[in-house]
Amino acid sequence: MRSSEGSKPIRIGLLGRGTVGGAFAELLVGRADAVEAATGRRPELAGVLTRSEGDFGAILERSDLIVELMGGTDPARDFVVDAMRAGRPVVTANKQLLAQHGDELFGIAREAGVQLRFEAAVAGVIPIVRTIQESFGVTEVAKVFGIVNGTTNFILSEMAATGAGYDEVLARAQELGYAEADPSDDVSGADAAAKMAILARLAFHTPVNLSEVPYEGIEAIQPDDLAYAKELGLSLKLLGVAERRDGGIGVRVFPCFLYPGHPLAPIEGPFNAVMVEAPAITEVTMSGPGAGGVQTASAVLGDVVSILAGEAPVHETRVELPIVADVTSSFYLYLEVADRPGVLATVATVLGDHDVSVKSVVQRGAGEDARLVMVVHECLESRFAAAVAALAELDEMRAAPRSIHVIEKEF
Amino acid sequence: MRSSEGSKPIRIGLLGRGTVGGAFAELLVGRADAVEAATGRRPELAGVLTRSEGDFGAILERSDLIVELMGGTDPARDFVVDAMRAGRPVVTANKQLLAQHGDELFGIAREAGVQLRFEAAVAGVIPIVRTIQESFGVTEVAKVFGIVNGTTNFILSEMAATGAGYDEVLARAQELGYAEADPSDDVSGADAAAKMAILARLAFHTPVNLSEVPYEGIEAIQPDDLAYAKELGLSLKLLGVAERRDGGIGVRVFPCFLYPGHPLAPIEGPFNAVMVEAPAITEVTMSGPGAGGVQTASAVLGDVVSILAGEAPVHETRVELPIVADVTSSFYLYLEVADRPGVLATVATVLGDHDVSVKSVVQRGAGEDARLVMVVHECLESRFAAAVAALAELDEMRAAPRSIHVIEKEF
Repeated sequence: MRSSEGSKPIRIGLLGRGTVGGAFAELLVGRADAVEAATGRRPELAGVLTRSEGDFGAILERSDLIVELMGGTDPARDFVVDAMRAGRPVVTANKQLLAQHGDELFGIAREAGVQLRFEAAVAGVIPIVRTIQESFGVTEVAKVFGIVNGTTNFILSEMAATGAGYDEVLARAQELGYAEADPSDDVSGADAAAKMAILARLAFHTPVNLSEVPYEGIEAIQPDDLAYAKELGLSLKLLGVAERRDGGIGVRVFPCFLYPGHPLAPIEGPFNAVMVEAPAITEVTMSGPGAGGVQTASAVLGDVVSILAGEAPVHETRVELPIVADVTSSFYLYLEVADRPGVLATVATVLGDHDVSVKSVVQRGAGEDARLVMVVHECLESRFAAAVAALAELDEMRAAPRSIHVIEKEF
Repeated sequence: MRSSEGSKPIRIGLLGRGTVGGAFAELLVGRADAVEAATGRRPELAGVLTRSEGDFGAILERSDLIVELMGGTDPARDFVVDAMRAGRPVVTANKQLLAQHGDELFGIAREAGVQLRFEAAVAGVIPIVRTIQESFGVTEVAKVFGIVNGTTNFILSEMAATGAGYDEVLARAQELGYAEADPSDDVSGADAAAKMAILARLAFHTPVNLSEVPYEGIEAIQPDDLAYAKELGLSLKLLGVAERRDGGIGVRVFPCFLYPGHPLAPIEGPFNAVMVEAPAITEVTMSGPGAGGVQTASAVLGDVVSILAGEAPVHETRVELPIVADVTSSFYLYLEVADRPGVLATVATVLGDHDVSVKSVVQRGAGEDARLVMVVHECLESRFAAAVAALAELDEMRAAPRSIHVIEKEF
């Protein structure tokens, strides 16, 4: 662990204290020790600017780094420009700011020699910005595409699952907090277009004008479309696509059916997922929650840490955790037994004696023998192993029991 | 673009020229322009050490950075130690080296003040090392788990799909180059255990001794297990799991059934996928090819670039690519038409006149009207739009045609 004695704290000026801003302020306190351990500097809030309180100039003056979470471009753009010109690195989650003023802001960051980081602006906690900029920074990316709006993915998933109409599902999404009171930016595809403009710029190293990105939303999707599509095995997603085409690039947003087996087909609910394709990497898919206060705040904090780290830090252990050997699991159990009355009861008794509880069982005859295939509920592995050892001793066993771990559908 | 005039080349010493080493040497030449654009320094090979040729001392002398792709720990460990002690940053794809000698190597890197990067050591081209170390570096990770061995995932996928036995499928995997002549490290779970030891160390900031990671392989899996599992809707994967448990951590590798709907269930063939769970991020899943010469070499090159970049670079555009508007797509088309003989022929003729070709069609009567739902093959969007406009003019149309993009199963 790096010594923190005498280390200077890092003073963070926070612009905006909505859902994400509030979560960030909280996370900063909760993870202060971890940040200090990782970077040698302890973060502290130098000031918070809200619509009604705080003075930007004063906050800037006493901050080492600015975190912009106000949203919108006015006055966010001016604040970010001023901060960078004053030599402060900036972290922002503001997709409109980047999509509309990217060229200007990146130019100022370069001139001022400060970092401008924005992982949270695209696809929430999925580290797609870092991956494209750093891991695949010199890769000839052919295509970046995916589900970059969680609101619309939730609506489409619900419509497909329930057969309900767009308006009804939108209302439910609003109740659950997955859609805003005015959902037009999300459902029209405009939000996704801004994110794709950013991803296309990063992937292809070319300026992308947001006004050149056509988008189509999901407002016109009918339950019928989804019902018929189900028969064809298709699932509907609002896709953003940025790809090289005919010596140029195509960037756009549109609803799209995916065949089963497509890596994006199983992405349901308010999740995002992005795929990157390139000859040298084949394809990489990344998925996770597309929004949420604490999730977005986590991505912002990751950027703050990257700025503090500067030169990439060498891994360092911080604690010495014991390795726990006996954990719990659910199991699949395959038994070949004599096909005679009472054998299932015998097996069940042995399992019960070891506190192993059966979740489902399939029994099949096979001549003189039968097969019992079962799944048991989660239990201590040592207990399950003892039960299996006891089963192996039964007269009715025709072969050694076989068992395999099972992960239950618990999420 | 940064000026390259007078910039010093970065001289890379390459240890090992097997599949990955060869692919890396080739990629370095092919992406030299991109590396120079991204970092301001042009990479060049300072020397290559193979089993039969080259002198390590001489190569080290004329290198700025060492890339270790020999595999094994002897003499790789000595070379990496010497390189770092001589002040050279090191990139390696060597999981055994990290899993067995991590503490020593990270310690030397810190002492020497050089970077030691190893993205390619775990999960191929999936940027899981960077994600855990950087994006989630201060996140309280609860669990990291996934499919970290492509050979076994290919074998299990094939066994499940074909019903064939382990030996037969292993032989096929060897023919296809997905399994080595001596596959024991992969099929026993030992390879996955080394990778999980590395991931657990990074995620939990704790030393993990490879000898403390229990593993179980897939050699004993029977076609029967997979057949019964199919009936229960389960799919079998070789999982590596590292998780916090009872104040400590559990790290191990074992075959495991997954219920449908689990994010790892659809990962088939020689792919890897890793999930990270934490309260502040919910869960993030990343998948991609687990191996392959050029894919692994890409991950190595990404690390080289990160080292050259030092302080994270600000995004910079390098080219100005035109935006291409008229691209091609496949489409779903929904038509409400009068239910009279010949209407399908009329529709098909209009489509044919516009060079739009029908892939599948479902026709349903509904009183006086009928619905035609079809999927058409990929075609220019402008052509499809013209066809839809012409269809809208038909007397037989009972409502405006509706269309949605389709992505075909082409991978």
